[in-house]
Amino acid sequence: MKILHSEPAKDGFSMPAEFSRHYGCIMIWPYRRDSWQYGAYNARKAFAEVAGIISKSEKVIVCARYEDYDNARFMLPDNVRVIEMESNDSWARDVAPTFVSNGSSVRGIDWGFNAWGGLVDGLYFPWDKDNKIARKICDMLDVDSYDKRDFILEGGSIHTDGNGTIITTEECLLSKGRNPNMTKTEIESELKKSLGAEKIIWLKSGIYNDETNGHIDNICAFTGIGEVVLAWTDDRSDPQYEISKSCLDILELSTDAKGRKIRVHKLPLPKPVCISQSECDGLDDMDGKPTRVPGERLAASYVNFYVSNGSVVCPMFGDDNDGKAIEILSELFPQKEVVGVYARDILIGGGNIHCITQQIPYFE
Amino acid sequence: MKILHSEPAKDGFSMPAEFSRHYGCIMIWPYRRDSWQYGAYNARKAFAEVAGIISKSEKVIVCARYEDYDNARFMLPDNVRVIEMESNDSWARDVAPTFVSNGSSVRGIDWGFNAWGGLVDGLYFPWDKDNKIARKICDMLDVDSYDKRDFILEGGSIHTDGNGTIITTEECLLSKGRNPNMTKTEIESELKKSLGAEKIIWLKSGIYNDETNGHIDNICAFTGIGEVVLAWTDDRSDPQYEISKSCLDILELSTDAKGRKIRVHKLPLPKPVCISQSECDGLDDMDGKPTRVPGERLAASYVNFYVSNGSVVCPMFGDDNDGKAIEILSELFPQKEVVGVYARDILIGGGNIHCITQQIPYFE
Repeated sequence: MKILHSEPAKDGFSMPAEFSRHYGCIMIWPYRRDSWQYGAYNARKAFAEVAGIISKSEKVIVCARYEDYDNARFMLPDNVRVIEMESNDSWARDVAPTFVSNGSSVRGIDWGFNAWGGLVDGLYFPWDKDNKIARKICDMLDVDSYDKRDFILEGGSIHTDGNGTIITTEECLLSKGRNPNMTKTEIESELKKSLGAEKIIWLKSGIYNDETNGHIDNICAFTGIGEVVLAWTDDRSDPQYEISKSCLDILELSTDAKGRKIRVHKLPLPKPVCISQSECDGLDDMDGKPTRVPGERLAASYVNFYVSNGSVVCPMFGDDNDGKAIEILSELFPQKEVVGVYARDILIGGGNIHCITQQIPYFE
Repeated sequence: MKILHSEPAKDGFSMPAEFSRHYGCIMIWPYRRDSWQYGAYNARKAFAEVAGIISKSEKVIVCARYEDYDNARFMLPDNVRVIEMESNDSWARDVAPTFVSNGSSVRGIDWGFNAWGGLVDGLYFPWDKDNKIARKICDMLDVDSYDKRDFILEGGSIHTDGNGTIITTEECLLSKGRNPNMTKTEIESELKKSLGAEKIIWLKSGIYNDETNGHIDNICAFTGIGEVVLAWTDDRSDPQYEISKSCLDILELSTDAKGRKIRVHKLPLPKPVCISQSECDGLDDMDGKPTRVPGERLAASYVNFYVSNGSVVCPMFGDDNDGKAIEILSELFPQKEVVGVYARDILIGGGNIHCITQQIPYFE
């Protein structure tokens, strides 16, 4: 593995869309007792179910700590590879590399990671192990790695159409805990150089009460060239309404990198999902303080799906809209099987199926 | 990765000769302060030199602990992959899988490992991390793994011609610290079933004062079908003389699995290599006791070379016989470059170049 200090775009590399062909998918085995209730017992079952579905159509590599290797190996299907790797938590989307491709070979971008806000409003301390994961995954895959550790970015804060357009949120990328010394223009420039993009569409905010400072991948995702899904509620009394409406207004006035209008498909949200007393009881305190309180609204959204070669793996919440979400996604991805996974046990950790996966574009 | 409980030979798999074509080579980054003087500073340089030479003609994968990843990454060439893995020490030959092949695909045998003798005369405690390495390497390589953890064996205690013949030593395989409840016949049978062998040639002992209970790979190695090198001294006052003479007598009376006589090439030993006071000063105690004492004779032997696709990497000791060893090996491996590596800093750890490497046969 070469550690590169050049710019992916200049080198002819860009980030493909998630709906392009994959080599495979990276996940990380959960263990944190203050993130995952009851020693991650149920979370592991849900992660294993997600890995199993994805592994039907692409390679899945699950990173597990030394002490969790045997557990991961025996809970996961044979065709999923388990790789030893230390981590602070289990969010492959945000700590694994963002992969870029030149059409035949693949490289990984090793962004800086500071647990969604560092000492300003980060979610745990320390985050050193997570920050080292991207480079090691490149080494393991035998692909070169761009050293971008000076720029704080999580994979969940960007989505691309693979055709020159990036969508992101101001709430996240302009947050004080990430790159406070960079202007919006400088951040745009960094995204363009790194991802091979020509245009950045800035939404204002992500899902209400999303502790990642509003990651794009929980509210809006490309489903094709010029097509996005947007998390939506018609309930004007819900604080989410104004957020989603603002996104809709911006998207309807935007064109993509190639000047095309963007078609917005509303993906209804489930009714507010709040953590229960018994779920909170299963979470260890962090530094003597609870990580969640009973009744706290979790950032539930069907937009947090993963697109594999053969399937769309979508979180389910036991909500009336579960079926509607599957129906909409099935129409948008007619070549793929849309598979729902009951994901409350992932959501409790603070994210969902897209957050715990990171695609590797196809390479030979 | 499937964990298999069947027998490699029955499944059509057997162990290829080391001089057959390789996919690559596994190594483990040294760190133990009671094995490697001065915090493994010089040992790491020697390991990196060995990895660099081998990587010119085959893939090299170096396993390093989480805390050593950065050091390994920066000391090793770019084309060597560094993979995170916990270990108790750095002897890939003995803890990595023994790979078997059916001509197109490869599987790994995951033997039990107990630090060369367990609680009887093992060299360190605990050895649990080492015992878990073989399976994880198979998982990382995406090859299936035979579960043979109930049978204690180290890769350094066997050599094969890849043609049905195994050589080993009674001193090691019949030692009380390995499989004391198995008869010699039962051990033979296990080797045949696992390695796809038809004949076991038993030498009595390995190199004098070799703390592995006389591993074959320090005294005798196949260099081709029907050809071996044997560590040799003409000095009858050296306790090594009687050991080598016994090996010679047995080999000259033996035939291989196909009934061929075995041609023995004597490889002269260096003059006795003894550890110095300052080298001992650089070794931490183990459980309050020194691991070596000044003047202790180390098990130096030129037989402990590694055969890569393009080279034979042979330990050098700054001895008058260094050149002679290179000359003999160059005649025996006319298609390969014989490269000497000054290996005193590996020898101090208790083994040499063959002990710190494990070949992976070629597969697609």
